[in-house]
Amino acid sequence: MTEFRVEINNLEDCLEKYIPKEELKEVKRILYGRSDDRLELPEETRKLAEKINLELKGYSIPAASEELRKPRIVRIGAIQNAIVLPTTDPFEKQRNAIHNKVSEIIKIASTANVNIVCMQECWPIPFGLCTMKKDPWCKFAEDAKTGPTTTLLKKLAKDYNMVIVSPIFEKDNDSYWNTVVVNSNRGNYIGKHRKNHIPRLDDCNELVYYPEGNTGHPVFETDFGRIAINICYGRHHPQNWMMFGLNGAEIVFNPCAVDSEASEPLWGIEARNAAVANSYFTVAVNRVGTEVYDHEFKSTDGTIHHNFGPLFGSSYVAAPNGHRTPGLSRNTDGLLITEVDLNLCRQVKDFWGFRMTQRLDVYAESIARASKADFKLQIIRENCQDQV
Amino acid sequence: MTEFRVEINNLEDCLEKYIPKEELKEVKRILYGRSDDRLELPEETRKLAEKINLELKGYSIPAASEELRKPRIVRIGAIQNAIVLPTTDPFEKQRNAIHNKVSEIIKIASTANVNIVCMQECWPIPFGLCTMKKDPWCKFAEDAKTGPTTTLLKKLAKDYNMVIVSPIFEKDNDSYWNTVVVNSNRGNYIGKHRKNHIPRLDDCNELVYYPEGNTGHPVFETDFGRIAINICYGRHHPQNWMMFGLNGAEIVFNPCAVDSEASEPLWGIEARNAAVANSYFTVAVNRVGTEVYDHEFKSTDGTIHHNFGPLFGSSYVAAPNGHRTPGLSRNTDGLLITEVDLNLCRQVKDFWGFRMTQRLDVYAESIARASKADFKLQIIRENCQDQV
Repeated sequence: MTEFRVEINNLEDCLEKYIPKEELKEVKRILYGRSDDRLELPEETRKLAEKINLELKGYSIPAASEELRKPRIVRIGAIQNAIVLPTTDPFEKQRNAIHNKVSEIIKIASTANVNIVCMQECWPIPFGLCTMKKDPWCKFAEDAKTGPTTTLLKKLAKDYNMVIVSPIFEKDNDSYWNTVVVNSNRGNYIGKHRKNHIPRLDDCNELVYYPEGNTGHPVFETDFGRIAINICYGRHHPQNWMMFGLNGAEIVFNPCAVDSEASEPLWGIEARNAAVANSYFTVAVNRVGTEVYDHEFKSTDGTIHHNFGPLFGSSYVAAPNGHRTPGLSRNTDGLLITEVDLNLCRQVKDFWGFRMTQRLDVYAESIARASKADFKLQIIRENCQDQV
Repeated sequence: MTEFRVEINNLEDCLEKYIPKEELKEVKRILYGRSDDRLELPEETRKLAEKINLELKGYSIPAASEELRKPRIVRIGAIQNAIVLPTTDPFEKQRNAIHNKVSEIIKIASTANVNIVCMQECWPIPFGLCTMKKDPWCKFAEDAKTGPTTTLLKKLAKDYNMVIVSPIFEKDNDSYWNTVVVNSNRGNYIGKHRKNHIPRLDDCNELVYYPEGNTGHPVFETDFGRIAINICYGRHHPQNWMMFGLNGAEIVFNPCAVDSEASEPLWGIEARNAAVANSYFTVAVNRVGTEVYDHEFKSTDGTIHHNFGPLFGSSYVAAPNGHRTPGLSRNTDGLLITEVDLNLCRQVKDFWGFRMTQRLDVYAESIARASKADFKLQIIRENCQDQV
């Protein structure tokens, strides 16, 4: 098991601790843009969070005012949490404990008028899929429309007038899927999306459980903007991010369950680069804690062990202009509330013009060629006839 | 003109100055991966650099040893520099002065056994293209094969057994192009590539000078690996980076001329994200200094002025595993030497499996649809019939 080598709970706290104020401002601008304006949160929210030891952070990412459009202010909540009970406890007890903890966090979010909330990948269960064992984990998959998690969330969504983005392990007849359900703020199931890109790593070949998603790149129209979900490993694929953008997304959530040392240095750049390349907001959400299983399984470095984690949390929001919030901590439950003005999407599109300059027709053709078995690489050699 | 608000010449130097050693190691790991291993450079190299006030940095990015392949060690040089003479001086004098300065830097690189070197965008001239004036700047474009810059570099390339990647302002019969010429270490012209994506910003509409590139996404096979070039604004387009990868690139250079505040927070993430997404090395090169023109032109914020810059340098190398070197300074001439083992590309491909999981056929089809005027967005609404 990899332990964090030095106790840095949070990168930004560490920078703030040591770097003098004037330089810190410049360091943050270069690293993060200018978007760490604190958002004042209600006393009640802060007290409730404190009571359950929940890290609570609030930031605001503004946009310029416009002549023809009113601001489109939306409060986004990102929830990261550890599981509650041992993975060997009766499963329903485990799930209820997680349901209860996260319901409380959603309630806290509601006291700060959060409009849309998103949890981490497969949030109602331990991420037992890392073990490559089907029994018992397949038994804990649930129906996207009628399962216990959607049933719970539809009620909370209506009670709190909140869109709830809920990543689950789905069972649909005889098939399993890594899925996200979107529940409307009126308590209705809007639809679902299935993970498009499935990791086939040494330590995690999720194809054992489910195939590549068959739901395309849907964008869900909600009262609080057009949203989409890029599930976990799909963050490594820029074309996956791009299609959500082309379908009109203004906020793309990226719920994850990531622990490996290989991933942490990429964490701050992938969802943020996607926000820039596609002129939308991205919300990267990751688990925390270490999950201990009673059966052995392989880790990235090939060793055999019982632990998944530590999962490094660090959930954050990135804006179309590349600015980002600081992250939640690497090791504690947390709620990150970010107030954004969705008008920033079009403002950035008009500034950079990536859509206008992206030459989709060229890439449709070249990617089609590259996808064929007889693809001929465009290679130029010294003194060859292809030279231009 | 935007001045740097606080004198931070180099972000990493600032972190090193203030953060205690143990924490610093962890901060760097989270921010940059682990690739800031210093590379020992020859005494001669250091002395020559010191003599001309050239910032010199050396790093090493290793790979694991393999049973069936020898290491493929390559030393990459990235050169960033300010122009030398006022932009109002006779042009040939200006170009000669830049030629002389950069020739000296290339010579210094050769004393450290650099194998491939790349300069910044349109390196032989001031970036007068920011002024939107055709006269006199169009007069300074040159032929890719026979112009003074290629003539000079072919000689240096042969003398120093070095591949030289040379971004120029090209004239080809009656057309102008933003082009990069690749010269082999035997002193031969291998070929050229033309900028694929052209900015159309408030302050910089380069379409005034040249159209979108018509050379595809060529990869140049050299004695020191397969290389490609993504010119400046193309860094914002992930699909541009992707096609160089699909054509087999192991190192992709990104020569730039960037000054705006809007760009600096993106600088560290775009080329680095491309390195990760495509499992190759990327080399981001940017100008330094402020260029003063005698004619007025617009800046990003709409103000009229005479200056382009300050250009923020900060050239760096990113590896397929997401690790990156610290950057060169934001305001001085510099040479960044990075020793890499190209075997890391395949090692990372085998680890992450992005190629295998990228579903090109799906994207060929969906991007083709998105490129048509009658593209129907995949949008799911509450209670609509498209609901799944």
